[in-house]
Amino acid sequence: MKDKISIVGAGLVGSLLALILKQKGFNVQVFEKRNDPRKSENVEGRSINLALSHRGIRPLKLAGVYETIEPYLIPMKGRMMHDEAGELTFQPYGKEGQFINSVSRAQLNQLLIESAEKAGVEVHFDHKCTDIDFENNELTFHNGLTQQSDLVVGTDGAFSAIRKNLQYTDRFNFSQHYIEHGYKELSIIPTDDKFLLEPNYLHIWPRGNFMLIALPNNDKTFTCTLFFPFEGNLSFAKLTTKDEVNAFFEKYFTDAKALIPDVADQFFDNPTSSLVTTKCEPWHKNNTMLLGDAAHAIVPFYGQGMNSGFEDVRLFVEMAEGMNWKWDEVLPAYSASRKKDADAISELALHNFIEMRDHVGDPDFLRRKKLESKIQETYPKEWIPLYSMVTFSDMPYSEALRLGKIQKRVMDEFLQKEGDVDFDEIINRFNTLKQGG
Amino acid sequence: MKDKISIVGAGLVGSLLALILKQKGFNVQVFEKRNDPRKSENVEGRSINLALSHRGIRPLKLAGVYETIEPYLIPMKGRMMHDEAGELTFQPYGKEGQFINSVSRAQLNQLLIESAEKAGVEVHFDHKCTDIDFENNELTFHNGLTQQSDLVVGTDGAFSAIRKNLQYTDRFNFSQHYIEHGYKELSIIPTDDKFLLEPNYLHIWPRGNFMLIALPNNDKTFTCTLFFPFEGNLSFAKLTTKDEVNAFFEKYFTDAKALIPDVADQFFDNPTSSLVTTKCEPWHKNNTMLLGDAAHAIVPFYGQGMNSGFEDVRLFVEMAEGMNWKWDEVLPAYSASRKKDADAISELALHNFIEMRDHVGDPDFLRRKKLESKIQETYPKEWIPLYSMVTFSDMPYSEALRLGKIQKRVMDEFLQKEGDVDFDEIINRFNTLKQGG
Repeated sequence: MKDKISIVGAGLVGSLLALILKQKGFNVQVFEKRNDPRKSENVEGRSINLALSHRGIRPLKLAGVYETIEPYLIPMKGRMMHDEAGELTFQPYGKEGQFINSVSRAQLNQLLIESAEKAGVEVHFDHKCTDIDFENNELTFHNGLTQQSDLVVGTDGAFSAIRKNLQYTDRFNFSQHYIEHGYKELSIIPTDDKFLLEPNYLHIWPRGNFMLIALPNNDKTFTCTLFFPFEGNLSFAKLTTKDEVNAFFEKYFTDAKALIPDVADQFFDNPTSSLVTTKCEPWHKNNTMLLGDAAHAIVPFYGQGMNSGFEDVRLFVEMAEGMNWKWDEVLPAYSASRKKDADAISELALHNFIEMRDHVGDPDFLRRKKLESKIQETYPKEWIPLYSMVTFSDMPYSEALRLGKIQKRVMDEFLQKEGDVDFDEIINRFNTLKQGG
Repeated sequence: MKDKISIVGAGLVGSLLALILKQKGFNVQVFEKRNDPRKSENVEGRSINLALSHRGIRPLKLAGVYETIEPYLIPMKGRMMHDEAGELTFQPYGKEGQFINSVSRAQLNQLLIESAEKAGVEVHFDHKCTDIDFENNELTFHNGLTQQSDLVVGTDGAFSAIRKNLQYTDRFNFSQHYIEHGYKELSIIPTDDKFLLEPNYLHIWPRGNFMLIALPNNDKTFTCTLFFPFEGNLSFAKLTTKDEVNAFFEKYFTDAKALIPDVADQFFDNPTSSLVTTKCEPWHKNNTMLLGDAAHAIVPFYGQGMNSGFEDVRLFVEMAEGMNWKWDEVLPAYSASRKKDADAISELALHNFIEMRDHVGDPDFLRRKKLESKIQETYPKEWIPLYSMVTFSDMPYSEALRLGKIQKRVMDEFLQKEGDVDFDEIINRFNTLKQGG
């Protein structure tokens, strides 16, 4: 196979795709508008660390790079909630032995680029795509160079240049929607070489309309992220002085503030970033395809942005291989099968923000969680909680969303009943609704 | 007042806005990417004629140009439905003396540009805006020229260059959505100097999932528009030969086909155009504002695209005058007050397509229409039909939409009841729901 494939964007999805397509025997070139990340600083406006889980791990294993990456991962077994008094509550993410993994975006990206280059992929940094001719699959770059290929894949993120060009073709549906919240990253830096919070958890300070979270890093620091409204009574717009920032953290995040003595300095040094959901359709035109954030950027609250992008890569390559790499058939078939799942994880991610910031500390939510874990104990195969379907399975996101809605409905019904809960009745009701009854 | 105002786009909305702002004493310049329409042909992809009604007429009168335009208008008193047997049914649009007006887009645009120029507006044709610096209100054009102003207004349509630039600013929400149908225009040309259909009606051939309409022109022709799916069993994709086109028109539009002997030639000579809804928010940034289609492009089925754009002009200028032309206060205030109305007419326009193509011939729809006209006869002030609120009033579109939904609910309730209809009861129910009861 000698097909020439051009990938625009050497981020996480683009570099993994390049590696796998090279392993399949293609002539793969990657074009990245930024400088080589191994030679420059972390990029503003993108999170420092991410949560890698099953859907992301599986394609890394298929590509044979998981072993290289594993040493950099920090397992997180569940949520550790901090209430205003500093009291901790633990909620496991799944069953014993199931966890998600904190990983540095920059480290993971570098490892993937290096693996792709070792496999023979040519990565051209400092090549900003300025135009694409969809009829001839020809890319133009800011330096005037052009590149013709058999297949072009845009993995150039939420603000994709490839998608921007698609937007001005006829009958291309597109939306970008920003939520009312932005985010700001802050660091917890240890004084000696020890984590200042328990490392194997994702820490959450849920505060109703806003929240702080913290993920561990390899260097024993934690990266905290404040998700906070841009406008309103309690908002970024209202925190304009160091005194205000200190008072705000003292009041709402007392225990966290004690670990970040320079919180006010960090607050004004670090950027405030926005959070966007993008949707588009179709994802392809002729022999050009969008994958990952370029096709479906989502908010980060389900930890599935990167994972869904890596799953895109696996599903796209598996489908293409099954169709004998006939791109003109693969591209529409892939779009048709995957679009509903991208829409589903987009919806789930928006909804999980409300759960994380508002519900996780709520008595009603905890009652539901307790009921659910008992159902699951009794029927471990029949009833898999929504979080597990999304995070620890390969089930299509759209099916997880559908089943999750049925589970919610069944639990709502049984939580309203008085007397003892009959688990057989619950599972029967669930199975009936599941079959469309 | 010496404020320098740059308007991008010399279409219907831009030229009317320019005229009115010039009359208010501003230094107004208009930049248009196309050539002077007085020197060139009609532009592809935009409808030939439009329906001008109350919301569009009012600002034309305020600008003192309505008298110039009136001789070019052809009143349309209602819908004339053609069934498959060629039988005609008439539905008036409003009360006796209420009508909408067929007008040529090109003629109206020329009259408005001429009026603006006569008033002292400078119109620069062949100036394509390529960039805008929102910090300095500076426009750049394809010829390298730049223009700095106190206020920039983008009236450059559904594919606005100004909005395109806004889209890449942070936290700008945007969507463009194409419906499944496209349209194709066809002409009914008289052999002698007489209209071949009754001229004072909007003719409709409703056929379920598709429809043909016809509006009269001053030269005694009719412009027909076929609204038809792009894909599917009965679709543009399936009509590939002249025989297929002839057979299709013969079967579904027998009486119309008899008036268009060269329908198959016209079908392949004329373009197939798509239909888009765009939404965005905010409509302004610093001293740059979007108005008309640039802010909210809608599908044409309520005949409100131009009318809502002209109403934008009136409301914007009235609000600005009331706020003493303080643009930094006017722009956010206008967006805040008008956005909900743009969303409402967008929804109404999409819904009216279903009514026009599918419901207008339906017995259930006719029963509802009959009930409604009786309610209106009995309570002419209390109950104004939705079509009249939208077409013959200045009521905010969002309020018309809200009241229309209540009317539908009340009629649904009473149509299910048996026995005689009590109109007092209907109007009481309507008034209760209207007040939020």
